[in-house]
Amino acid sequence: MQPDATQAFPSAMESTIVVASNRGPVSFDRDRSGELISQRGAGGLVTALSGVFFRDDTTWVAAAMTEGDRAVAVEGYEIDPDSHQRVRFVVIPPERYEAYYNQMANRILWFVHHYLWDTARTPTFDEHTEATWQGFVEANRAFALALAEEGDRDPVYLIQDYHLSLVPAMLRELRPDARIVHFTHTPFAGATYLRILPAHMRDAILRGMAGADVVGFQARTWVESFLLSVRDLPGFRVLRGGRFAVGDRIATARAFPVAVSAHSIRETAAKPETKRVRRELKAWKGAARLLLRVDRLEPSKNILRGFLAYELFLRSNPSWQGRVKFLALFSPSREALPEYQAYGDDCLAEVERINKELATEAWQPIEVRIQEDYGYAVGAYGLYDALLVNPVYDGMNLVAMEGPLVNRHGALILSRNAGAYGRLRKHALTVNPFDIRETADAIRDALDMPEEDRKRRGRGLSRTVQAHTPPLWLASQLEALDQVRLPPD
Amino acid sequence: MQPDATQAFPSAMESTIVVASNRGPVSFDRDRSGELISQRGAGGLVTALSGVFFRDDTTWVAAAMTEGDRAVAVEGYEIDPDSHQRVRFVVIPPERYEAYYNQMANRILWFVHHYLWDTARTPTFDEHTEATWQGFVEANRAFALALAEEGDRDPVYLIQDYHLSLVPAMLRELRPDARIVHFTHTPFAGATYLRILPAHMRDAILRGMAGADVVGFQARTWVESFLLSVRDLPGFRVLRGGRFAVGDRIATARAFPVAVSAHSIRETAAKPETKRVRRELKAWKGAARLLLRVDRLEPSKNILRGFLAYELFLRSNPSWQGRVKFLALFSPSREALPEYQAYGDDCLAEVERINKELATEAWQPIEVRIQEDYGYAVGAYGLYDALLVNPVYDGMNLVAMEGPLVNRHGALILSRNAGAYGRLRKHALTVNPFDIRETADAIRDALDMPEEDRKRRGRGLSRTVQAHTPPLWLASQLEALDQVRLPPD
Repeated sequence: MQPDATQAFPSAMESTIVVASNRGPVSFDRDRSGELISQRGAGGLVTALSGVFFRDDTTWVAAAMTEGDRAVAVEGYEIDPDSHQRVRFVVIPPERYEAYYNQMANRILWFVHHYLWDTARTPTFDEHTEATWQGFVEANRAFALALAEEGDRDPVYLIQDYHLSLVPAMLRELRPDARIVHFTHTPFAGATYLRILPAHMRDAILRGMAGADVVGFQARTWVESFLLSVRDLPGFRVLRGGRFAVGDRIATARAFPVAVSAHSIRETAAKPETKRVRRELKAWKGAARLLLRVDRLEPSKNILRGFLAYELFLRSNPSWQGRVKFLALFSPSREALPEYQAYGDDCLAEVERINKELATEAWQPIEVRIQEDYGYAVGAYGLYDALLVNPVYDGMNLVAMEGPLVNRHGALILSRNAGAYGRLRKHALTVNPFDIRETADAIRDALDMPEEDRKRRGRGLSRTVQAHTPPLWLASQLEALDQVRLPPD
Repeated sequence: MQPDATQAFPSAMESTIVVASNRGPVSFDRDRSGELISQRGAGGLVTALSGVFFRDDTTWVAAAMTEGDRAVAVEGYEIDPDSHQRVRFVVIPPERYEAYYNQMANRILWFVHHYLWDTARTPTFDEHTEATWQGFVEANRAFALALAEEGDRDPVYLIQDYHLSLVPAMLRELRPDARIVHFTHTPFAGATYLRILPAHMRDAILRGMAGADVVGFQARTWVESFLLSVRDLPGFRVLRGGRFAVGDRIATARAFPVAVSAHSIRETAAKPETKRVRRELKAWKGAARLLLRVDRLEPSKNILRGFLAYELFLRSNPSWQGRVKFLALFSPSREALPEYQAYGDDCLAEVERINKELATEAWQPIEVRIQEDYGYAVGAYGLYDALLVNPVYDGMNLVAMEGPLVNRHGALILSRNAGAYGRLRKHALTVNPFDIRETADAIRDALDMPEEDRKRRGRGLSRTVQAHTPPLWLASQLEALDQVRLPPD
């Protein structure tokens, strides 16, 4: 892509990049000899972004998670030898990190953006909420200060997710000419629902994000939710085409659906240990068909209704009993938080009940594994006849995209409330995630589907996913950044 | 108001009126001798509308609730001697009524429009949901058929609330030229939240309401939620100024905040039995200040957080302990439904705990009365120092308007999520209903407020409420109906 000759500033496409996210792409621990060794970070965001940072001269700023990370932070930058990335850690004191990450981000912001509250009872903001909020503000400020220190190279800042929603405006204050993209990986709450937050928090979050030049989301729905909320803020005007004015400055809100790297997932699939998992699971599955789900054990994933739908499917289609197995792979998630723990307990209790009521000597309807093992999931991807992705709400959902890259013969059952619905709907069996009757019917249809049909859809899914690569995802954000700075026509 | 000479049709202002609502303005029972006697209907909608139908030649179509109603329905129309209204009852078989009213309207639509679901767990649509929906469709059809039979007099149809959301389109099919207003008394769910409903139900509800010429709501927020949802329906276009096109037909969505009748509430206040209640409560209250709430015992009213906020206020301001009493008047609501029962139980348990922990020999912090007694509530209105109206979400909230009509010295604490907020915010202490710290502070500020300030606000509230009368509310809807049929400029 050629930089526009009319531009008075360098194209974002040619600039150095500074990424900020709560969790970094690597984390450092000490081996037995006391040497620092790095480990790949977990979580959807890191997976999504890892494929992007293919070039030199990229710095990734993240919160220190381990004693090793803190040592790296103190020693200065560390160059990750595999990817030519620099990593810089922001050290946040434990109590402040608890307020910022567990309380504010995971218990409050995650819940508002996924519509997860039981509003008659939760949330209840009280005399502790303000301290939680201050921890969030301070952690965001620590990020903004670290980013501002990277400003000498006039980089493009790519600030990731709802944890860092205040950073763009804070950074703009420190560096008024900074070029900033903020990208939200979750959904974004509708305007009425967002008003559940105390007014000053809601306003700070909206103004914080609007500090960016480009405010990115996974899907058009979330863009619109954001614009509907900023529209009512004093000093803001929403213009046409997703652009909005903050005082004299013009910014834009746009959808940039995230992409996954076919290359890296296939590399994982080709590993001997992944192949071994696949062989083991194949032997375990036997002649049965395989229904698979892969999720963090988390309320937005709609795990409970997934099991209820499967039970309804088995009871309505008794000929399938004994001929299908449901493998549910969960990575543990935020287990210290009571809401997550209660939800996880409820899910496992439901599995126990269903298995007890329906199992025979030779067959158990549901098999659950709770483990942090990406390779194991990729091994399972290769085998499914149907992949169940039924979140209540989801920013995008990477599993729905990863599965078809490894498996081109299985069907995808996809929630209409996942961001991935926009791209994959054509080739998926789509469901209302609250409707277990419709989900049960989709499970039946997926398993009953003629093989040719299933393969055709599988190829369609795989092609669609591959058409959108992480470098293109990055390029579209940088392009939007160039465009927003152009004088209007 | 003069009819416009350019109009080829009679002004809606001069037409006869047919109202439809689930609950009628009166209900019939037999006395001991077997004669039919009428009783005023309960509920906010009837209260709001009763003041409107001041003129002859108005028919009110409602569902038969009692054996007496069914007798009236069979015998034909009954003229209510007090108000010159005709009442016509639609007889819906009990099983269908259960599906239509308790299951579909109260457990599903009420919850979606008030954002009340605990989405990780509720709702779960299953194999019974479709039968529930069919009951709703059939009950709406019975209303549409009854209304169509009233068509000979070329009336204006005023169709009330979410229970009858399918009626406008059904009636339009039966009487293509009918002039129809649909008015929603509740909030209207945001576009993303509304997608919780199975798609065909959501679409039918939106298309049903859009069958009206004028789609009315309590507040602009709910208008916008509606327009955002219809925008995505095939065949719909949203135009400027709240107008939208359904094929070739133009309709409009507008806010018509409901009004209450100062005359009728003051009549109630002047009754000897109301005065007796007031005397009794005054004696009971003694020298203490009075915090009052008047609500149906119902999750959207946010009763639990109200008690928690009051507790927080007492603990943070111990000097108020013993000097204030919280009187909570609840009318029983939908007690047969498990969600309502569980919520009511939780509320009463909280009261018991707070009273146990804080009461002294001479003082009990909270007094709860559960009773269906409008006059008792009006008696209490006269006495409050502060009125707590903190709903999670509320279409309008009539209590916030009724209280100041009787009481011009008390303060109003008002949720920003109540429709009444738009009108009353200037004179009220407004709160985020999820924030018990802010609500506790508002209780303190209301009670600490200098008398002159409190009276000034009270007069402001009363004047604002009186400036909007039920006849004006009706006239603005009829005017909108005339305007939507005018050729565009």
